[in-house]
Amino acid sequence: MFETAELGRELTKKAFKARVPSLREALLSTQFKLREAGLPVIILFAGVDGAGKGETVNLLNEWMDPRWISTRSFDDPSVASLERPHYWRFWAGLPPNGQIGLLLSAWYSQPLLKRVYGDISNAAFDQKLDEIQNLEQTLADDGALILKFWMHLGKDAQEERFKSFEADPLLEWRVTERDWKHWRMYDEFIANAERLISRTSVGHAPWHIVEGYDQNYRSIRVAELILEAMQARLEANRVREELRKVSAAAPAVAPADSEDTGDSVTVDVPGPLTVLSRLDMSLDLQNGDYKKALREQQARLNSLHRQAFKRGLTTVLVFEGSDAAGKGGAIRRCVAALDARQVTIVPVAKPTDEEYAHHYLWRFWRHLPRAGRVLIFDRSWYGRVLVERVEGFASEEEWRRAYGEINAFESQLVEHGIVLLKFWLHISADEQLERFNAREVTPHKRWKLTDEDWRNRERWQEYEEAVHDMVERTSTRASPWVLVAANSKRYARVKVITSVCDALENALARTDSETEHD
Amino acid sequence: MFETAELGRELTKKAFKARVPSLREALLSTQFKLREAGLPVIILFAGVDGAGKGETVNLLNEWMDPRWISTRSFDDPSVASLERPHYWRFWAGLPPNGQIGLLLSAWYSQPLLKRVYGDISNAAFDQKLDEIQNLEQTLADDGALILKFWMHLGKDAQEERFKSFEADPLLEWRVTERDWKHWRMYDEFIANAERLISRTSVGHAPWHIVEGYDQNYRSIRVAELILEAMQARLEANRVREELRKVSAAAPAVAPADSEDTGDSVTVDVPGPLTVLSRLDMSLDLQNGDYKKALREQQARLNSLHRQAFKRGLTTVLVFEGSDAAGKGGAIRRCVAALDARQVTIVPVAKPTDEEYAHHYLWRFWRHLPRAGRVLIFDRSWYGRVLVERVEGFASEEEWRRAYGEINAFESQLVEHGIVLLKFWLHISADEQLERFNAREVTPHKRWKLTDEDWRNRERWQEYEEAVHDMVERTSTRASPWVLVAANSKRYARVKVITSVCDALENALARTDSETEHD
Repeated sequence: MFETAELGRELTKKAFKARVPSLREALLSTQFKLREAGLPVIILFAGVDGAGKGETVNLLNEWMDPRWISTRSFDDPSVASLERPHYWRFWAGLPPNGQIGLLLSAWYSQPLLKRVYGDISNAAFDQKLDEIQNLEQTLADDGALILKFWMHLGKDAQEERFKSFEADPLLEWRVTERDWKHWRMYDEFIANAERLISRTSVGHAPWHIVEGYDQNYRSIRVAELILEAMQARLEANRVREELRKVSAAAPAVAPADSEDTGDSVTVDVPGPLTVLSRLDMSLDLQNGDYKKALREQQARLNSLHRQAFKRGLTTVLVFEGSDAAGKGGAIRRCVAALDARQVTIVPVAKPTDEEYAHHYLWRFWRHLPRAGRVLIFDRSWYGRVLVERVEGFASEEEWRRAYGEINAFESQLVEHGIVLLKFWLHISADEQLERFNAREVTPHKRWKLTDEDWRNRERWQEYEEAVHDMVERTSTRASPWVLVAANSKRYARVKVITSVCDALENALARTDSETEHD
Repeated sequence: MFETAELGRELTKKAFKARVPSLREALLSTQFKLREAGLPVIILFAGVDGAGKGETVNLLNEWMDPRWISTRSFDDPSVASLERPHYWRFWAGLPPNGQIGLLLSAWYSQPLLKRVYGDISNAAFDQKLDEIQNLEQTLADDGALILKFWMHLGKDAQEERFKSFEADPLLEWRVTERDWKHWRMYDEFIANAERLISRTSVGHAPWHIVEGYDQNYRSIRVAELILEAMQARLEANRVREELRKVSAAAPAVAPADSEDTGDSVTVDVPGPLTVLSRLDMSLDLQNGDYKKALREQQARLNSLHRQAFKRGLTTVLVFEGSDAAGKGGAIRRCVAALDARQVTIVPVAKPTDEEYAHHYLWRFWRHLPRAGRVLIFDRSWYGRVLVERVEGFASEEEWRRAYGEINAFESQLVEHGIVLLKFWLHISADEQLERFNAREVTPHKRWKLTDEDWRNRERWQEYEEAVHDMVERTSTRASPWVLVAANSKRYARVKVITSVCDALENALARTDSETEHD
C-alpha cells in the first residue's frame, strides 16, 4: 500500500516557488467561500513520525487565514477527559460550521499505538475502527467535509530523518527515545496502519497517503488535495442547491427509503396502536401511600447515589414526554433526594448559536459531567425524532438517520460505565386538556402554558407515532426506555425514582462483582 | 459580630410548615420574573462547617425550579484551573442572565483558610479581599444581584453538631479529621471571618449572617432574604425602566461625571492632538531589509517561544487598530513562527448568544489558554471603549467604568505570570482610503471591505479620541500599549514581532533569575 509513497519524490525549490502564490490565493478565496457556506472541514493528520505532520499543519496556518482554522493536537487524555466517554474530547475539538479543523493525534492515534504495542487484539482494533467509521459517518452525514492524510516515510528514510535531526543542535530536541522505540517497531506499525487505512478509507472520509520525504513536495501535495476537495464540495453544494430550487417547483415525490432494516416495523403499525396504547393509564397511588413511597425511595436514592459518587459512577437521566406530562415535577422529586452540588439539570430548548454551528449531538456531548455526577436532561437529543420530525424541522433523511446516531451515542455512554435511563412520561389526551385548562386558571402556572402547547396538541396522533418509532428503534438492552403512565403524577414520580434506584443498585452490584473478580 | 447568630433561634415544625407553601410559591413566581427580566443572581454561601450550607442549597433547589439554578461547589482547583489565572474557574461558573447561581466554597474560601492557617499575612489577606471586592463590583455594575450568606454556629454548637453526626451511623461520614482540626482553630477562624465580612459587606453585595443552629429557622431565613432581595431588585428595575421611558421624552441632560480622577485628562485634550499624533508615520523598511529582519525575528520568536512553552509561560497578544490597518497580516507573520498546535486565534466579532448572556468580560476569560500557549485576540475587550463607545452600543457609564474593569482583568493575567502585549496598529486616514480603494479593485480582497468600514471611516476623529483615552487609561507599567505606525506594513510587522520577542525575552530572563533565587 505504501510503496508509492516511498519513491523519494521531490519538488525543486523553483517549482515550489512558482506554485505557491496561486495556490495560496486559491486556498484563501476557497476558505472564504467555505465560511460563507457554513461548511465545516475536518482534516486529520496521521502517519510516520518525522514525515512532516506538524510542519504541514503550520504551513497551512500560514497559507490560509489562521483566524478560521482551529488546530488541535490530542496528547494523552487529561483527567477531565478520562472521566468522560472516550470521544468526549474529540467532540469538544470539532470545528464549528465554516471553519477548518486541523487535528493531530486524533481518534486514530490511540487504537493504532495500542495495537502495535499489543495492548489490544486484532478484533478489538477492528471494533475501534468501526466506532471511528461510525463517528465519521455521523459527521459526514451532517455535511462535514472530512479528509485524512497519512504522511509517510519509509523505514530507511525515517532513520535518515532522525539522524539528521540529531546532528543539528537546533533540532535534536525533536528526536526522543520514544521515537527510536517506534522506529524499531516500524514494520509492525506499518502493517497495522495498512489495516487501518484499508478499513477506514471510504468515500465520505478518504485517506490520502502522502510521501513526506521532501518538504516542498508534501506541502504542495497536501494543500492541493485540500483545495481540490473543498472546491469539489462547494461546487456539489451549489449544484444541489440549484436542483433543490428547481424541484421545489415540481410536485413532491416520496423519497425512497434508504434503510432496508427496521422500517417495515413502523410502517406496519396502524395509526392508533402504538407501544403507548399498551400502558395501563389507570395506575395510581393514594396520597398516603404516595408520601410513604416517595420518602422511602428518596432515602434509597440518596444512599445509592452517595455510593455511586464514591465510586465515580456517573448517571445520566433523560426526561421526555408530552407537554404537561409532569417532567418538571418528576425531576424535582429526584433532585430533592440528591446533593445539588453533584447534579446538573440541562433544560433543552432552542440551541444557542454556538450549538447550532455544530452537529446536533455536540450540544449534548458538551454537558457530559465528571465522574460520579448526575446529569439530567429535561428533553434531549430525542427532539430530533420527535418535535423536529413532526414539525418538519429535520428532513426525513435526517431524522431517520438519527436513530442509528443516537444508539451509537448512547452505547458510548453505557460502555463508559454511565448509568443511562430514558423516561417517557405519558398522559392521555384528556388528561392533558384538563391540565392545560387548570394551568390557564392558576395564576402562578399560567406562564407554563404557551400557544405552542396548544398547537402541539393538534398533532397528538403524529407525536404518538413518532414516540412509537422512537421506542422501537432506540430501546436497547443497554439503555431501555422506561415508559411511565403519568396520568397520576403521584404514581409517575414514584415510578421514576424507583427506576433510577433500581438501575443504580444494579450498576453498583455489577461494579461490586467486577471488583471481586479483579 | 456573630453574637446575634448564637442565640439558639429556632422555628417550630408547625410554624415552618405554615410558612413554606406561600414562600415557595413566591420564590417560584419571582424566579420566573427573574428569567423574563434576564437578571443574573449570584448567591454565595460561606460559614462554619455544620451550619447547613449544603442542606440550604439543596432545599433551595427543591423549593425553586432547579432547571434555572446552577449549583457550583469549588473544591480544590484542578490542573486546568491552576494553569490559568486564579479567577478563571469562578468566571466559568457564573450563572448566565436570568439564572440563579448558588456558589459554595467560592472566592472567599481560599483566602480565609490560608489566613487561618497562617499561609498568608494580614496584608495579603486584605489584598485578596480587595480583589474580591473588585470582582463583585464589576459583576454588580453589570446588573447582577449578589447575595452572600454567612451560615453561623457557635463553637459549642459546632462541637455538638459534629458529635451528633458521629453518633448517627448514617451521618458519621460527614465529620472528618479536617473538620475537627478546623474546630480547634475556631477562634482564629472567626476572628478572620469578622475581618472578611466587615471589609466586604457593601451595598451591592451585602453579607447576611444567618444562625445555622436550627434547620427550620435557617431555611426560612435564607429563603426569605433571597426572596426579598430578588423582589426589591425586580421592583427597582421596573421603576428605573419607567423613569427611562419618561425621561426619553424629556430633553437630554449631560450625565454628571461619576469619577473624580483622570477624567480631566481626557477633557483637556484638544480634538486633533492625541497620543497617535506623536507617532512617526514615515517609518518604513526597504523590501530587502524587511525580509531579512522578518526572517531573523521569526527565528528568534520560534526559539523564544519554545523555551516559554517548556516553562509554561503563557502569552496573550491583543491586536487592535483601525480597519485595514494590517492586523491580519501582522498576526499571520507571528503565527508563522510558532507551532500552530500551541496557538489559538480568537477573532472577536459579535458575541454569541451564550456570551451575550454574561458580563462582557466573560467571553474573554473563557478563552484563556493552558500554560505555555499563545493566545491571540484579533480585536478584544477594548471594543467596549472603542466601537461600543463611538457607536453608542455601550452607555457612557458603561464604557467609562470599563477602563477600571479592564485594568483589573489585565492585572490578573499579568500577576498570573502571563506575558500580555497590546498592539495598536495605526494608519493615517489617507493610507486607509488608499487601502480601501485597493481592496475594491482586487477580486480576492473585496470581501474584506464592508459598508461598515466606510461608515466607521466617517467617525475617524471620534475613534482617534477613543484610542487616545484608551491608551491614557489602560497603558499600565505591567501591560503597556505598543503603538505601531503601520502606514508601512513591512515596518509594522517587524515592529510587532520584535516587540513580542523582547517581551518574551524579558519574561524568560525574569523567571530565570527567580529560579536562581529560589
